[in-house]
Amino acid sequence: MATSYPVDNTNKVKRIPKRGHYDKATIYEILDVGFLCHLGFSVNGQPYVIPTSYGRKGDKIYLHGATTSRMMVNLEEGIPVCLTVTHLDGLVLARSAYHHSMNYRSVVCFGTAKLIADTAEKEEALKVISDQILKGRWEESRLPIAKELKATTVLELTIDQASAKIRTGPPGDEKQDYELPIWAGVVPCQQVWGSPIPDPLLREGIEAADSIKNLV
Amino acid sequence: MATSYPVDNTNKVKRIPKRGHYDKATIYEILDVGFLCHLGFSVNGQPYVIPTSYGRKGDKIYLHGATTSRMMVNLEEGIPVCLTVTHLDGLVLARSAYHHSMNYRSVVCFGTAKLIADTAEKEEALKVISDQILKGRWEESRLPIAKELKATTVLELTIDQASAKIRTGPPGDEKQDYELPIWAGVVPCQQVWGSPIPDPLLREGIEAADSIKNLV
Repeated sequence: MATSYPVDNTNKVKRIPKRGHYDKATIYEILDVGFLCHLGFSVNGQPYVIPTSYGRKGDKIYLHGATTSRMMVNLEEGIPVCLTVTHLDGLVLARSAYHHSMNYRSVVCFGTAKLIADTAEKEEALKVISDQILKGRWEESRLPIAKELKATTVLELTIDQASAKIRTGPPGDEKQDYELPIWAGVVPCQQVWGSPIPDPLLREGIEAADSIKNLV
Repeated sequence: MATSYPVDNTNKVKRIPKRGHYDKATIYEILDVGFLCHLGFSVNGQPYVIPTSYGRKGDKIYLHGATTSRMMVNLEEGIPVCLTVTHLDGLVLARSAYHHSMNYRSVVCFGTAKLIADTAEKEEALKVISDQILKGRWEESRLPIAKELKATTVLELTIDQASAKIRTGPPGDEKQDYELPIWAGVVPCQQVWGSPIPDPLLREGIEAADSIKNLV
């Protein structure tokens, strides 16, 4: 199996090409530390970008939603989609306004989604999504019954092409600007989890879910 | 001036309509606490979703990029775009797998971008973007010179239509599931800023930028 995605005009990182990566290891690593993507598709020439959760297994990305959702109804037709995942790692403050930037890791995937009709496959795909969001939670939960599975559309997106784009490190300024009395550097940022807030209707005596310790 | 965006098939929140909002106050508030959007557009039927920074002023959103960027080259043609901003506020852990959800605030904007050709307008728009990312940094920076302005494309996106979608609060489970011995609740999350990391090439004796204290 190829270890990199094919590169052509669709997925080539044109702006600052040294930040572009096409190997699956890099792309999967960025996909796997997230669970929220922005999914783009076009209906009658109108683009839509919708935030949604996902789960990856191999070169497949699984997506789910209500059978009544506009996004699901459109995507199950097999239209081209673009799925993007972005992790913001910091603000890059340069001396010049022009050289300000951000540190980030992002992946842009291209492919076509198809409906998963088979019930067992559907459950397995939902578990992949659940595991990606919070490993261990599926086993703790009351699992879907037939009616719930029926109300849920699950899609499988095969990644045909993808690219990652990564920026790390300090700012790069124009040579003469290094003399200026202006602070420059990086302000890192990250997503952090707070203390779990129990449901006000939680029965007494139930400890916080074990799975929560898997949130990093 | 209308205080809400017109609602039609393009921007109507169909799935769980009670989470949908169309008033400008709600939409602007969500846009204004962020600076990173996912911008969707379509070229020859292929959708693209690209993460980029933005700044809002009134019903205009400003975007910038290298004049050589594919996104900028395509967008300045005046094609329809969808600009989406998402703030993840927490994981909603229900007793049933089916009722798991997320707390979030998101905005989806529809419109068409146009090139800002006038240099003074361009600078003003770049300041709007800079202020949105880090208020006060523009004044601290060495401002753009003619060559840098020329290398930068700045676009103005008028928001024609938009919708916000918000979920808050605890999970909602099926009545009979409240008896189950399963922990349920919300794990909040937020983006936090770390300690500034000075550029290794920073001149000695320069204090961290005042603007950094504006990061919340």
